[in-house]
Amino acid sequence: MQFSYYMPTRVFFGAGSLKKLGEVKLPGCKALIVISAGPSMRKQGYLGQVTDLLGQQGVKSVVFDKVQPNPIKSHVMEAAAIARAEGCDFVIGLGGGSSLDSAKAIAVMAANPGDLWDYIGGGSGKAQPIPNRALPIVAITTTAGTGTEADPWSVITKEESNEKIGFGFDDTFPTLSIVDPELMLSVPPKLTAYQGMDAFFHAAEGYIAACASPISDLYALKSIELLAKWLPLAVNDGSNVAARAQVAFANTLSGLVETTSCCTSEHSIEHAMSAYHPELPHGAGLTMLSKAYFGFFLGKIPGALYENMARAMGQDVDALPESERPQAFLVALGKLIAECGLANLKMSEFGIRREELPTLARNARETMGGLFDLDRYRLSFDETVDILSAAYS
Amino acid sequence: MQFSYYMPTRVFFGAGSLKKLGEVKLPGCKALIVISAGPSMRKQGYLGQVTDLLGQQGVKSVVFDKVQPNPIKSHVMEAAAIARAEGCDFVIGLGGGSSLDSAKAIAVMAANPGDLWDYIGGGSGKAQPIPNRALPIVAITTTAGTGTEADPWSVITKEESNEKIGFGFDDTFPTLSIVDPELMLSVPPKLTAYQGMDAFFHAAEGYIAACASPISDLYALKSIELLAKWLPLAVNDGSNVAARAQVAFANTLSGLVETTSCCTSEHSIEHAMSAYHPELPHGAGLTMLSKAYFGFFLGKIPGALYENMARAMGQDVDALPESERPQAFLVALGKLIAECGLANLKMSEFGIRREELPTLARNARETMGGLFDLDRYRLSFDETVDILSAAYS
Ligand SMILES: [Fe+2]
Ligand SMILES: [Fe+2]
Repeated sequence: MQFSYYMPTRVFFGAGSLKKLGEVKLPGCKALIVISAGPSMRKQGYLGQVTDLLGQQGVKSVVFDKVQPNPIKSHVMEAAAIARAEGCDFVIGLGGGSSLDSAKAIAVMAANPGDLWDYIGGGSGKAQPIPNRALPIVAITTTAGTGTEADPWSVITKEESNEKIGFGFDDTFPTLSIVDPELMLSVPPKLTAYQGMDAFFHAAEGYIAACASPISDLYALKSIELLAKWLPLAVNDGSNVAARAQVAFANTLSGLVETTSCCTSEHSIEHAMSAYHPELPHGAGLTMLSKAYFGFFLGKIPGALYENMARAMGQDVDALPESERPQAFLVALGKLIAECGLANLKMSEFGIRREELPTLARNARETMGGLFDLDRYRLSFDETVDILSAAYS
Repeated sequence: MQFSYYMPTRVFFGAGSLKKLGEVKLPGCKALIVISAGPSMRKQGYLGQVTDLLGQQGVKSVVFDKVQPNPIKSHVMEAAAIARAEGCDFVIGLGGGSSLDSAKAIAVMAANPGDLWDYIGGGSGKAQPIPNRALPIVAITTTAGTGTEADPWSVITKEESNEKIGFGFDDTFPTLSIVDPELMLSVPPKLTAYQGMDAFFHAAEGYIAACASPISDLYALKSIELLAKWLPLAVNDGSNVAARAQVAFANTLSGLVETTSCCTSEHSIEHAMSAYHPELPHGAGLTMLSKAYFGFFLGKIPGALYENMARAMGQDVDALPESERPQAFLVALGKLIAECGLANLKMSEFGIRREELPTLARNARETMGGLFDLDRYRLSFDETVDILSAAYS
């Protein structure tokens, strides 16, 4: 029972909380607003609302609108140069996890020399110390998936070497995060499901990880409970505001899990998949891996972990014979995946070939090998391939 | 479902975590160490350990050792003057809630002109804006009661007018808090019980308060669950390290409740009691009030609140007829109080006279009237007296 807790972000949660941006003290006078390359932030009017609210406080802004679903290092470097040239003194990420994660990396590189990979700790990164404080970061999330509004993590892909790596430190916690479920009403069902499952696995992995603690367990089990109950409702009726709010809250809790615990090797393996197949949504990759992944660990890690997750998901665990109780988590997981309409996802339909599974396993272990150290059971290379093979269809 | 979350303190939790003080970056070069007037911090060796650990980092220190169980404003002002004269650039509170709360107030006044009551918002306080940033605060808690290591609140008594008032703002969050259950092993049974019950009421009041939110509910129900289970064990065997750790964790959770929700009028009423009777331990006062207080609100606020707390305390609520379920919380509360050996506390034995109950009710409403606004049912003056009368024996 040993842990440390540090999550310095000020979070405003709730329908209508976007307006806080016009009311609270902001960490600078000129913002670089980071959004995705798609049209939605303009079309939904969110970008206009944000610049208006900034304007109410006399804060100027510049927009960088090239972020891709799996954000790439060259865009981070390009945006950081713009922030410097324009004299921006803080960075706003507006959108999904890719925009928020990009904003974090841009905030670091706008204030520091060299290349992002000079500071990355995995793969071909040089793991150098970061000389200067990052610019302050404001996160305005319009999806419920990565939890990045409540954690320091940023996941960026170095495109030339297919390295998709997470990094983060004290400075990459947002100074201010706004989680307004009303901004999530327009997310289509499939993306709602993918993103919600990502949040689910942040909680489930963080719960079974070796670095879990009493406080991360508290967040994780609540997030798991809420997602099992509310995610199918949000997927099946995107206009259900109560469901959107509960899923958004679960996602923020999952961010707190990532801050206080950690992901496990499932995330490493998925990062390899989507580094090689950038069109593969992260949450879809995790979902396709999950039954094989959690099934593999069954019997290898304490059964109580699976039992507690199953209980949080509404399974009547105690009615089962003791030896079958851990299995109840896999049942609940399958049910959640089916209720979210994701039961028929196939890796082959995202362009993944069976022959490349060993390459993906190798990439997972090379670029994000650190997460394998956080599993309660140490996967070998062959076992990593076995999980991928079992998940393949 | 609207809330804000901000708790910027870095918390190190766990047996042996005191040694972190020798390892982590500290917020200054010379500390004012604030301890109580009693001998325990020296006798237990905690003060020596702290100064040694600071010394390992080349950090100097000065000791202020006059804090009383209900800390008083004149000591805050005296210590602030010492901090200024000695050139201290941060303040360490070492001990129980009184030392930690004093450290917070001293950190404010060491960096600001005038009198503490110039900045206090209730009673005769002038509610002026605080011009300067407080000195950074380090909280090292040796008891499990106030949760002050994870909240911004400081409760100080202005002795000449019997005003015991809580205040706090962003700067009064500790920069760093150390919660080491090993430092709590020597707390005697009675104090363990009083302090644990204080933590319990922070959670229970924060759960029924009008300002509760999904995140404060999460902390509150867990704290209530852990205290119902572990506090009697810690009271009855102070050397039970597991029980001490669980109670310490519950107390930190209760601090998070105070950060994300608020106390209710029970705390205002108790503050009046211990402002007039400084020898009355805060947790004893709350315990003596509690059955009458929570009993009064039964039927006046949603029954589900009491049912959920009862369930967290291990009551088989669902076996009861629906109309009797809220009552189960009062049963569980009585059981907890009895198991902690506090069933026979009497106000009269702490010197409180029945005739002064109206005075106490008036003081509660004048000095900490704000908490009455946070009740879900608005107490009148007469009802406040009624609660005190029902609790009196
Ligand atoms: Fe993820
Ligand atoms: Fe208290």
